Amino acid sequence: MSASPFNSEHVGEWASFGPKLKGKPTPEQRVALAERKEKRTAMKQRLFEELNDPKWTEKKIEKELDRLMEEQEKAAERPEYLDGPSGTRDFYPPEMKVQRWLFDNFRKTAASYGFEEYDAPVLEHVKLYERKAGEEIVDQMYNFTDKEGKHVTLRPEMTPTLARMVLNKTNLVTGEVRLTLPLKWFSIPQCWRFETTQRGRKREHYQWNMDIVGVNHVHAELELLAAACQFFRGLGIGPDVVGIKVNSRAVLEAVLSKHGITKGQKDKSDGGDVFAKACVIIDKLDKIGGCAVTDLLGEIGVNADSAADILKALEAPTVDQLSEHIGGETEAVGEVKRLFELAKDYGIDDYLIFDASVVRGLAYYTGIVWEAFDRRGELRAIMGGGRYDRLLELYGGAKCQIPCVGFGFGDCVIMELLKECGKLPDFQESGVDYVVCAFSPELYGAACSISSKLRACGCTVDLMPTPKKRVAASFTYADQCGARRMVFVAPDEIEKGVVRIKDLRTKDKNGEAVQVDCPLDEMHTVDDLVANAAAN
Amino acid sequence: MSASPFNSEHVGEWASFGPKLKGKPTPEQRVALAERKEKRTAMKQRLFEELNDPKWTEKKIEKELDRLMEEQEKAAERPEYLDGPSGTRDFYPPEMKVQRWLFDNFRKTAASYGFEEYDAPVLEHVKLYERKAGEEIVDQMYNFTDKEGKHVTLRPEMTPTLARMVLNKTNLVTGEVRLTLPLKWFSIPQCWRFETTQRGRKREHYQWNMDIVGVNHVHAELELLAAACQFFRGLGIGPDVVGIKVNSRAVLEAVLSKHGITKGQKDKSDGGDVFAKACVIIDKLDKIGGCAVTDLLGEIGVNADSAADILKALEAPTVDQLSEHIGGETEAVGEVKRLFELAKDYGIDDYLIFDASVVRGLAYYTGIVWEAFDRRGELRAIMGGGRYDRLLELYGGAKCQIPCVGFGFGDCVIMELLKECGKLPDFQESGVDYVVCAFSPELYGAACSISSKLRACGCTVDLMPTPKKRVAASFTYADQCGARRMVFVAPDEIEKGVVRIKDLRTKDKNGEAVQVDCPLDEMHTVDDLVANAAAN
Repeated sequence: MSASPFNSEHVGEWASFGPKLKGKPTPEQRVALAERKEKRTAMKQRLFEELNDPKWTEKKIEKELDRLMEEQEKAAERPEYLDGPSGTRDFYPPEMKVQRWLFDNFRKTAASYGFEEYDAPVLEHVKLYERKAGEEIVDQMYNFTDKEGKHVTLRPEMTPTLARMVLNKTNLVTGEVRLTLPLKWFSIPQCWRFETTQRGRKREHYQWNMDIVGVNHVHAELELLAAACQFFRGLGIGPDVVGIKVNSRAVLEAVLSKHGITKGQKDKSDGGDVFAKACVIIDKLDKIGGCAVTDLLGEIGVNADSAADILKALEAPTVDQLSEHIGGETEAVGEVKRLFELAKDYGIDDYLIFDASVVRGLAYYTGIVWEAFDRRGELRAIMGGGRYDRLLELYGGAKCQIPCVGFGFGDCVIMELLKECGKLPDFQESGVDYVVCAFSPELYGAACSISSKLRACGCTVDLMPTPKKRVAASFTYADQCGARRMVFVAPDEIEKGVVRIKDLRTKDKNGEAVQVDCPLDEMHTVDDLVANAAAN
Repeated sequence: MSASPFNSEHVGEWASFGPKLKGKPTPEQRVALAERKEKRTAMKQRLFEELNDPKWTEKKIEKELDRLMEEQEKAAERPEYLDGPSGTRDFYPPEMKVQRWLFDNFRKTAASYGFEEYDAPVLEHVKLYERKAGEEIVDQMYNFTDKEGKHVTLRPEMTPTLARMVLNKTNLVTGEVRLTLPLKWFSIPQCWRFETTQRGRKREHYQWNMDIVGVNHVHAELELLAAACQFFRGLGIGPDVVGIKVNSRAVLEAVLSKHGITKGQKDKSDGGDVFAKACVIIDKLDKIGGCAVTDLLGEIGVNADSAADILKALEAPTVDQLSEHIGGETEAVGEVKRLFELAKDYGIDDYLIFDASVVRGLAYYTGIVWEAFDRRGELRAIMGGGRYDRLLELYGGAKCQIPCVGFGFGDCVIMELLKECGKLPDFQESGVDYVVCAFSPELYGAACSISSKLRACGCTVDLMPTPKKRVAASFTYADQCGARRMVFVAPDEIEKGVVRIKDLRTKDKNGEAVQVDCPLDEMHTVDDLVANAAAN
């Protein structure tokens, strides 16, 4: 039977609406049943729209989910280890094809901007992430103590790893970097987190990272933004669908310094950087609202009046108005303006929007920051990035003042968006050129030899492992593989020194699939034979 | 300065020979110093041969290692977290290029046999690996308890994950598989282990896995072996360099059953499978010798006479002689013979050797097993595989009798071999088509616009981020990128509506690099302009 379109999460959701009731319901049960019905209907409708396949009617969806639920109940003693750890994904071949396609597009874009790929272990020392700024990512690490007592973690993000790698090629005493700067590097790491609060959220994702190391001005930000926009445009995601909000923490720094929070100031309670903490708090504005932000700012020493003024600054609709707020154009304001100017030359200005309230939730950003979002406002951020000029200094010491800028671009939200916009290609094509079918075990050796010859011509060959006398079995197998051509290794032809080849996608003038007999020692001529047969 | 060819492991090894002595040595110190000198000389010579670069003389190697060691000492307060966790690798762009090349070859081979790629999380439940057979891989897991009390591990191998994924599409009650069998799947997972005994051994590696699920006869083994041989041959590793030892545990089962160890028999002490334990013990023969194996077999109830007979059987030079030993040809012997026959048709018989002593160290193999090795006998096994017909039953219950066969092919040993044989390609080619250089900040916008146009033509463009007036700076940058062409965005040309493009690899008849002026609105004509200029 064909594969079910539903996974264990679907079944779990379906099961959560409760079981069917046996016997006459009480009034309370009647309410619960009505609710159950409503939820089931809503889910059916949702799946019907998602599947968008006339074969899967709502009725059929209901039946299949009930069947799967029942099966799940039967298999209740099923060992837990048959599921991967909570919040992880398995990539079966169909999902893997989609992932490869997405990653290939990440790679293609990065390469066309001259970026080089790097990678590093998924495991890192916990200390690499200890920044005392209350960031979500650090609070929710997938960390543990190894058998030698080391505190390690599945990496929550890639930037500290990149910093570590650069510093491993840096003389910490002199600050000399034994790599040729600037570096333009990219990677597609899997990143992990451990959080228990919200159900259904994943604990791992892949994240395309692009970074430029060693450029201390806005051309680096511009290059990264241009690459991201080229990626969007290349997949048919225009500026009407996606926008990128841009701001500068350096400008925000000017706002905060008006209220006594100065660059490099340390929190008395734990020695953490106060400005970084303020940014992490302000980043929560959308989620927790102005009052809560005011309270949290109070905890790091910002009084209510100052907080009100800061919140007001975040509403500035243009960089010029924000500039007015801080009393005149600073270097940081000039940088933002320059970025928007050059964006026009690069042809990406239609994607960019100034937004004073975007600060991003990571402690280490120091300058321009940005965030890509869907214009309908329904999804989480698609990508986030910014300048982090002081991270390498933090790890490596005062000599390591190496400017950096980078972004992280997750694999999940963009996939949701691509699905919604109908921009995912059709992954039906299997890429298999030939299925080779032996008609008896005695002919399997000949089938091996033929497969070998075809592969030597650069073809993809799926050799049917179990010889079958019935031609129908071969067709079923070829169909499953999505093969373009079938090779029949049958006794009569082999005796004559040929094999019969059927090209399932080339029709002759009668509209029938073309069929040719190809000599065993001239397998490289198949294409010509097929073309001739199609023409005659 | 150019990058040092030595990494922290080199420096660690160099430092382990001890520091230079100050003052007059005592007699004991004199011995130690002579030893130090000997070790340093040996290492210098080794590195000299490895580098194979006239620039790196032994003298220069010594100087560089001393310099790095000194630097390392200076940076002794260097935080530990700047190194990745012990036994892990960072992949800088040069190493990443090599990895991509190797993985692309794995993928190309798998695809040409009609295999589909899959993937799964690096984290799995510990229970998935509990097999009570004393396997090295299970004893040395990178396992820990997560924050919810679950016992999880960084996967030590991929096969149990594959089994889990297949069972997740199987009705455990009926045994019905909701995937179309046979499956031909491959993956290139990173696998982990935690072991403290041997210094310098890695704790992670990547492993190309190929598996066929749902075929209960030797054609499946054959297909996997053919794919591996095609991989070797494709990289220029002939059967004179690599061999694959083939044996059958089913035949060994017949040998052991003569001595009272029967299929499915449980160990009274822990309920483990006795035959599996015997195989894990016999696999250690090369490492620990016959006496130790006899002792260990004694512990699972095999007396000394039986052990002697078993060890004798393992020396059988042909499958026919092994067959004699067990008193006549069984089905299992017939399978091995059939495999060798068909290998001729497939053109891979020159790689295969029968070896009765190969059993592989994993508990779950049930039938044919194999192991690829370098003919010089200097490296560890290159690849290992075999049939595991009872693993899914073990996990999923009696209904899940799904035959499987697969191999694992690590990334480290093959890389050593490819290096030794000089079969690694030259990875100098950067793939950058254009470096675009602006001569002043005012011209950077024009440079962006030109870069954008060139990328729209499908070119890889590295835009030099910092405008430089000096032409020499542009050349240095282009050289670092390995770019093919340079675009000079300079005021005089821009005023005329053109840019100057220099093709560093195309010479005119005077042997000079071709230089053309290309109109800004006709950037797509560059190739023609260059071709013309070269001809004139």
